[in-house]
Amino acid sequence: MYLITVSIQCPDKKGIISEVTSFIYKMKGNILYIDQYVDRENKAFFMRLEAEFDDKLHSYDSFIDAFSKGPCKKFKISWKHRLNSVKQKMAIFVSKHDHCLYDLLGRYKSGELDVEIPFIISNHIEAKKIADTFKVDFYHTTIDSHTKESSEKKQLELLIKHKIDFLVLARYMQIIPEKIIEKFKNKIINIHHSFLPAFPGAKPYHSAFERGVKIIGATSHYDTKELDAGPIIEQGVTQVTHSHSVDELVSKGKDLEKIVLSNAVKNHIQQKVMVYKNKTVIFN
Amino acid sequence: MYLITVSIQCPDKKGIISEVTSFIYKMKGNILYIDQYVDRENKAFFMRLEAEFDDKLHSYDSFIDAFSKGPCKKFKISWKHRLNSVKQKMAIFVSKHDHCLYDLLGRYKSGELDVEIPFIISNHIEAKKIADTFKVDFYHTTIDSHTKESSEKKQLELLIKHKIDFLVLARYMQIIPEKIIEKFKNKIINIHHSFLPAFPGAKPYHSAFERGVKIIGATSHYDTKELDAGPIIEQGVTQVTHSHSVDELVSKGKDLEKIVLSNAVKNHIQQKVMVYKNKTVIFN
Amino acid sequence: MYLITVSIQCPDKKGIISEVTSFIYKMKGNILYIDQYVDRENKAFFMRLEAEFDDKLHSYDSFIDAFSKGPCKKFKISWKHRLNSVKQKMAIFVSKHDHCLYDLLGRYKSGELDVEIPFIISNHIEAKKIADTFKVDFYHTTIDSHTKESSEKKQLELLIKHKIDFLVLARYMQIIPEKIIEKFKNKIINIHHSFLPAFPGAKPYHSAFERGVKIIGATSHYDTKELDAGPIIEQGVTQVTHSHSVDELVSKGKDLEKIVLSNAVKNHIQQKVMVYKNKTVIFN
Amino acid sequence: MYLITVSIQCPDKKGIISEVTSFIYKMKGNILYIDQYVDRENKAFFMRLEAEFDDKLHSYDSFIDAFSKGPCKKFKISWKHRLNSVKQKMAIFVSKHDHCLYDLLGRYKSGELDVEIPFIISNHIEAKKIADTFKVDFYHTTIDSHTKESSEKKQLELLIKHKIDFLVLARYMQIIPEKIIEKFKNKIINIHHSFLPAFPGAKPYHSAFERGVKIIGATSHYDTKELDAGPIIEQGVTQVTHSHSVDELVSKGKDLEKIVLSNAVKNHIQQKVMVYKNKTVIFN
Repeated sequence: MYLITVSIQCPDKKGIISEVTSFIYKMKGNILYIDQYVDRENKAFFMRLEAEFDDKLHSYDSFIDAFSKGPCKKFKISWKHRLNSVKQKMAIFVSKHDHCLYDLLGRYKSGELDVEIPFIISNHIEAKKIADTFKVDFYHTTIDSHTKESSEKKQLELLIKHKIDFLVLARYMQIIPEKIIEKFKNKIINIHHSFLPAFPGAKPYHSAFERGVKIIGATSHYDTKELDAGPIIEQGVTQVTHSHSVDELVSKGKDLEKIVLSNAVKNHIQQKVMVYKNKTVIFN
Repeated sequence: MYLITVSIQCPDKKGIISEVTSFIYKMKGNILYIDQYVDRENKAFFMRLEAEFDDKLHSYDSFIDAFSKGPCKKFKISWKHRLNSVKQKMAIFVSKHDHCLYDLLGRYKSGELDVEIPFIISNHIEAKKIADTFKVDFYHTTIDSHTKESSEKKQLELLIKHKIDFLVLARYMQIIPEKIIEKFKNKIINIHHSFLPAFPGAKPYHSAFERGVKIIGATSHYDTKELDAGPIIEQGVTQVTHSHSVDELVSKGKDLEKIVLSNAVKNHIQQKVMVYKNKTVIFN
Repeated sequence: MYLITVSIQCPDKKGIISEVTSFIYKMKGNILYIDQYVDRENKAFFMRLEAEFDDKLHSYDSFIDAFSKGPCKKFKISWKHRLNSVKQKMAIFVSKHDHCLYDLLGRYKSGELDVEIPFIISNHIEAKKIADTFKVDFYHTTIDSHTKESSEKKQLELLIKHKIDFLVLARYMQIIPEKIIEKFKNKIINIHHSFLPAFPGAKPYHSAFERGVKIIGATSHYDTKELDAGPIIEQGVTQVTHSHSVDELVSKGKDLEKIVLSNAVKNHIQQKVMVYKNKTVIFN
Repeated sequence: MYLITVSIQCPDKKGIISEVTSFIYKMKGNILYIDQYVDRENKAFFMRLEAEFDDKLHSYDSFIDAFSKGPCKKFKISWKHRLNSVKQKMAIFVSKHDHCLYDLLGRYKSGELDVEIPFIISNHIEAKKIADTFKVDFYHTTIDSHTKESSEKKQLELLIKHKIDFLVLARYMQIIPEKIIEKFKNKIINIHHSFLPAFPGAKPYHSAFERGVKIIGATSHYDTKELDAGPIIEQGVTQVTHSHSVDELVSKGKDLEKIVLSNAVKNHIQQKVMVYKNKTVIFN
């Protein structure tokens, strides 16, 4: 038996669900989960399903081939698919603030995140100790006027060499090079420490304090060329009062950031996130 | 064109989704919304869909007939269906506390609730003024040792005479007669002013105060013979502190009750609630 | 016996609490509630207290006089004070969307809001019916190029004639004239249908939909000359998903707006809101 | 200069605040934070303050002595006090589930928790690895019919020998011996994985699943002889749906438990929690 996850996007038309589910039925598959969404305004159809097949009847590759030639062709479907048994490779980028790094590695070690983490990259050597504690490889890439270019080259090489599937920016305060953004489109998960679109850019907790808001937030989104403007995956908020100092906002925000980022990462791993017109469809 | 909503429950089996969606496709229907859920432990399948048909091709009745003889028979489906254009009839029962009554009638008048409200029943004559303000019929049914039997008889007669589809207990502090509970199974929506199963029964805000909880809640559920133990439709909570008196808990709770009850009512109207083993599947 | 509420603002100095509480003790007062806050960065002190005095010993006026000459002078206190038994006069301005109006009037009639409402002003004549239902005076002030000036004059005259203490803009979509803003500084409570500073201006739910946020909000703030930039009193949020249309955001937002606005109004009535550097200190 | 925290409980009487603040003013102290609460029903007064004194004028001991003889005597105050510069000693008890342990140790190492952690006790040897990673001493105390008595004796000895100030039960699934509960009254912080009083006892997530609740919670409370019935310090909740399995409830609950427990621990450390009639007053 093998278990697969399929995510589908195509123009909305009568009969897609019927076609896809009948196709799987004919291939003797058992649908375990299925979700659809239709964006009526844009006439776009989205579907995610998990199905189980008997590998004595046909292989994963032959299913992929048949589905491509069948429903995909008929309905102009663009799709992603994966064999659930194969672990995805996730790289972590981090700067000075290490609470999200601790959180992700704790979840990784306890088996909560179903991935491999081949390495951590940081522009701060202090993160090496944490990588060592959790026995994950570490690369130090300094980002200054002299080293920027070589560091970025090294980063890209590492990502390619290790066949990284997606990146997590666990409070990485450097700009990601355009080459990496292009190569990993909708595969770079960032955590921004505000309730976007409020307070983009640097020092959002300071801005929130200055404005006197009564609720602060955190936003996980895919990184795009435009700063803090990519498709939002997950947001969380928590109440604050006039009595909270900036430091207390930072401290309260840390717990938010950890949870929002880890939820976004889990949804990405399970292929529950589909991107469309700089927005996300989340099946969960 | 006509628009219908269908809710399905049956034992889980391979091919149900394929069968149902293909059937609708063959009937030239257009599926607007579709949701499924499989309870793997109990091998139970649930589906809700909204679909549009051309009444020049076949009538609502002929679709119902064909679906009954086709998928329903094949998969032992128990189902509910309705023509979306037909408004359901909702009766409101209320006692002394009138905030939920005000809230429901406000939403009704503004068109937010897509129902007819043929009448309001109360054991408190004070509610008549509110019914008058909103121009809804009102019946006063006193519940004491002498009048109980005749009142309950009158209630049931009113429900039958007006072809009521479902009842809302908008803080009705009397026991609903068993005959009505039996006749309106999973069609009596109650609001209980606590986070069930904590604090069932009378005076839950007093109990919450006494226990010193830091969060209070409200629960909307279908009424069953066992008090406050029916299938939960919706719950809401809000934070409180040591400084809140019982009266302040009551006041904060009112806003919760209004929102939780009106959400439950909306989900019921749209046939988004399915009951199974004293629990609900909510498609929204 | 008489009950008063006092709100104090002054530069922070050692001994203020001691001075104020000892003063009240010497006047044979009983402090029922007391809250303080010190903004350390700006060295500003805030205090709110409710105290009970024996009117056989001295009058409200004589207390006010003594407190002015005593603690106020010594610590350069700027303060507000009120006799709790005197109801404040609140005017409501509303445009087309009437859910907040319904909500406020419902709370008013049930005794939840301890105010008088001398009148409602709207640029939409439709609101008259609601005012009539709840038996509140109504004035229709059209706002176009011909009537703007006379309408604004009339509004100011009404506010002065009825000795209005504060205004509530219950979704009033017109600009408040500068003269009124100046005269009612920190006394005009607005509800904005977004989580400010995100999505200021018109059509915030459309912008939220466009941006694909996963949480929407509402913000109550004091009106200032700069649009949607005044001191924030209260904010609330609720989760949304990709599947919510703009209309559904609007609908979910209505419940938020009602609760956020009514909480802000209650805090204002009880003099729990103090404004400082375009931010609020909220004692509750 | 030295900084102290004082928590006060006494029968409510006119003039307490005035007396205490004037006393501190006369001792040339500077009040940094002050909070009060009066339980009117029970006529009980609560106050917490942080104040700064000049150690050239008098020592901490002499202040304590003077305050005991002064305000404490006059108003029958029972109080707690501490020198903020002295770190409290916190012991952690844990069983099999290690997410709260990881979380607390991460916060400890990053400096977020201002305590010393002399040791961790577990009935599961697996926790030793985690203790080693974070370089904290570890004791293994097996709890079976043969070892129970000696283990409990050893636990008490360790607590006394290391002068432990308070205990955290970070998902410790064993009963705490009465002797320890008595000695550490209101000093044993437990995390229960449900929204108490709903689902006390074992397997609350299973019970929540069975009942079909739409919100799950976590509760941190002081341990008392009666199971899961001690004074509640903090509660948190999160939404769930019919589609969540028991395992998913457990997984969602872990994040709740971590945050609820760590907030309770922080409030305890800062002496912000006062216990009264099996309830807590929380000043924050």
